[in-house]
Amino acid sequence: MPRYRMTVEYDGTPYVGWQRQENGHSVQAALEGGVLSLTSETVSIRGAGRTDSGVHAMGQVIHVDLSREWKPHKLRNALNAHLMMASEKVSVLDVQAVDAEFDARFSALRRHYLYRILNRPSPLALEAKRAWWVPRDLDHEAMHAAAQTLVGHHDFTTFRSAHCQAASPMRTLDRLDVTRVGDLIEIRAGAQSFLHNQIRSFAGTLKLAGEGKMTPADVRAALDARDRAACGPVAPPAGLYFMKVDYPGDP
Amino acid sequence: MPRYRMTVEYDGTPYVGWQRQENGHSVQAALEGGVLSLTSETVSIRGAGRTDSGVHAMGQVIHVDLSREWKPHKLRNALNAHLMMASEKVSVLDVQAVDAEFDARFSALRRHYLYRILNRPSPLALEAKRAWWVPRDLDHEAMHAAAQTLVGHHDFTTFRSAHCQAASPMRTLDRLDVTRVGDLIEIRAGAQSFLHNQIRSFAGTLKLAGEGKMTPADVRAALDARDRAACGPVAPPAGLYFMKVDYPGDP
Repeated sequence: MPRYRMTVEYDGTPYVGWQRQENGHSVQAALEGGVLSLTSETVSIRGAGRTDSGVHAMGQVIHVDLSREWKPHKLRNALNAHLMMASEKVSVLDVQAVDAEFDARFSALRRHYLYRILNRPSPLALEAKRAWWVPRDLDHEAMHAAAQTLVGHHDFTTFRSAHCQAASPMRTLDRLDVTRVGDLIEIRAGAQSFLHNQIRSFAGTLKLAGEGKMTPADVRAALDARDRAACGPVAPPAGLYFMKVDYPGDP
Repeated sequence: MPRYRMTVEYDGTPYVGWQRQENGHSVQAALEGGVLSLTSETVSIRGAGRTDSGVHAMGQVIHVDLSREWKPHKLRNALNAHLMMASEKVSVLDVQAVDAEFDARFSALRRHYLYRILNRPSPLALEAKRAWWVPRDLDHEAMHAAAQTLVGHHDFTTFRSAHCQAASPMRTLDRLDVTRVGDLIEIRAGAQSFLHNQIRSFAGTLKLAGEGKMTPADVRAALDARDRAACGPVAPPAGLYFMKVDYPGDP
């Protein structure tokens, strides 16, 4: 069966998260429903990463096997038409035909996430559900300095959810950069893989650094504690975006 | 009574428009309701511009007279708290105490609007209700060239709604610039004042120019026709943002 790789954007607000669940509608179910509606095939779609309820994607990557050959742009347009008919907040940005060896999850070399903070005294009207509103002034340079203590190969027990199912808390964090343009603070994270709630745990802790409540040394000490209790409050899901996945052979 | 000038952001999606109306909830009513809730005063709030249902603002300006003196930032925070309690999609970004001569509408020297087009094959998930989705590839340089034929002092009958209540169709358009960054095409318009639906009429006509269906000369001929029928389809409200108002003495 021909395999297709797709890049997918979604508004995570109305979904229980990426993964199909009993307790509500998921992005995975939305996409599988779109394929069923389009081709009458019941498929299982695998994504590069699981996102929680309320977390968005600009570049989630999935793969799916279909019974017949499609021109990629026709598959994209047809699937989008069916997603729109179902009023899903999911859009297929790109489709490529790939080899059977390609696996959206297991072939991934690196995942890229963005966490957005709007740092201003006034609540969010246009950016509601699209960013974390932090009214108190944050020092983004202090946040960036603190973030650098987390980069590298570490035991990230402090920064993973108690419900994280990963066998090991060891991960290699390639990048955790904090920048500001006007009111918008952006945290960009890159790694081969992340633990459950890792980036939102980073964001919540870096906010404390931005408020002057934690020094870079305190953040490093929290990491070294390997204790969930040392983590700052987990930042809300609406600020988080799954941006991009790198695969072997990508330009 | 002390007068306050406020800069206001709103998501126009859930409102019937800026102006208080019988047929639904307006941004003006939301703000007046916020003041009533905060100070128990029934006020009439005047805005610099009327926006239609679904049109957004990042910088609408209003003025309101209150019975007592407020520290501006306290008034901003208290009013925002009441707007949030009422689940309004309206946020007060800035408050200034002003002289009684200041009038949000009549003192305005220039109004600035932005129209956003997302020009890509895939529908909008994250930007739904925040931009106009145009799947067909647009030539933004052709759009900009066509736009320049509209700049200046003209009879804009072609580009105003049949319901426009302005006494005269004459306006001076200071600026109509079209730029592109990636998939996002931005149309920026500036003038002392605009006619009803003028910018959405421009956007709909410039889209035809971007598709190659109208040359700059055709757009100029549409203007010169002074005939509503010569206008392209009016672009949807979700792409339009009221950005900024200039007043005498502003830095």
